[in-house]
Amino acid sequence: MADHIHPIFDRLVSRNEKELFLNQKAKVFWFTGLSGSGKSTIAEAVERELFNLGHLVQVLDGDNIRTGICNNLSFSLEDRKENIRRISEVSKLMVSAGVIALNSFVSPTNDIRAYAKSIIGDADFHLIYVKASVETCEARDVKGLYEKARAGIIKGFTGIDSPFDEPTDVQLILDTESETKEESVKKAVTYIKSLI
Amino acid sequence: MADHIHPIFDRLVSRNEKELFLNQKAKVFWFTGLSGSGKSTIAEAVERELFNLGHLVQVLDGDNIRTGICNNLSFSLEDRKENIRRISEVSKLMVSAGVIALNSFVSPTNDIRAYAKSIIGDADFHLIYVKASVETCEARDVKGLYEKARAGIIKGFTGIDSPFDEPTDVQLILDTESETKEESVKKAVTYIKSLI
Repeated sequence: MADHIHPIFDRLVSRNEKELFLNQKAKVFWFTGLSGSGKSTIAEAVERELFNLGHLVQVLDGDNIRTGICNNLSFSLEDRKENIRRISEVSKLMVSAGVIALNSFVSPTNDIRAYAKSIIGDADFHLIYVKASVETCEARDVKGLYEKARAGIIKGFTGIDSPFDEPTDVQLILDTESETKEESVKKAVTYIKSLI
Repeated sequence: MADHIHPIFDRLVSRNEKELFLNQKAKVFWFTGLSGSGKSTIAEAVERELFNLGHLVQVLDGDNIRTGICNNLSFSLEDRKENIRRISEVSKLMVSAGVIALNSFVSPTNDIRAYAKSIIGDADFHLIYVKASVETCEARDVKGLYEKARAGIIKGFTGIDSPFDEPTDVQLILDTESETKEESVKKAVTYIKSLI
């Protein structure tokens, strides 16, 4: 067991080898935006399009993160930061495996987005802002969350009683007030394809 | 944005679709054993073999877990359990992406292994015991950890002053005292290939 006759690059399958095998570059595309902006709808449609084009892609969102790796975190400021840290670390592991990650999280402040970027690394982190005003998102209120936030049933809800910073360091903006879903998805796919 | 015209199975790319795309079944193969038993050496060689056979595989071990997603955990009993929980949740996400996970962790007790299995699910969790006695591992002492544990520099070291349960619910045993590395790797690859 003790004879390490192979050099390390030969024993470990590198990210680069996995990317060549999958014929893609692994990256993290991070969708930020208010609840109801259309982040997850777009991320899921983008996953489908990229998969149909032959790419291996994984959506990370509240559904598979808050119920799993982050199921012991609250919505306190400290725990929100830890939530973002864990998502970022999971994304790095996906990228190590050659997989493209599509992350759909409100991630409301420029600080928290910069924190995610610092963990994932500048070269792999790409921020996509799914833009819609609070008024529009509240009018949509797909999950009834804005109503609950206005009624005080949910505290610290982003856009109501918790801040949302307009993203400053952003690579792509999808304005879901002026674009159709199909237009936003097409823009995102075109952008992502140019990088993978 | 509001027209959800596609049923959910059409919007989300399922694990099954990703498995078909990769021509493999995603599973978690969990290598348990003492420090120095040869877990990581074997897991890395198995990754290489499976990759050469056309599989997408990811090793999870101390190097990429303790420095990342679990870098804020100590070695207290509570934190060890949280460590295993996070590894298990990361493994589930890998499996969602169609990736085969090779997990190399001491995971010293039957309780902690059962905990991992309960999170990952019976169908996806496969325990491989990399077997070598404390005496053998201590004699190898590749990383000098046993010497530090004997000197009391490391506390609660598995096999010295912290227990290691012989695994009871185990699918494959690799005895690295009686087998060569090549034999153990071949046995593991044969076993894994029969399931993926």
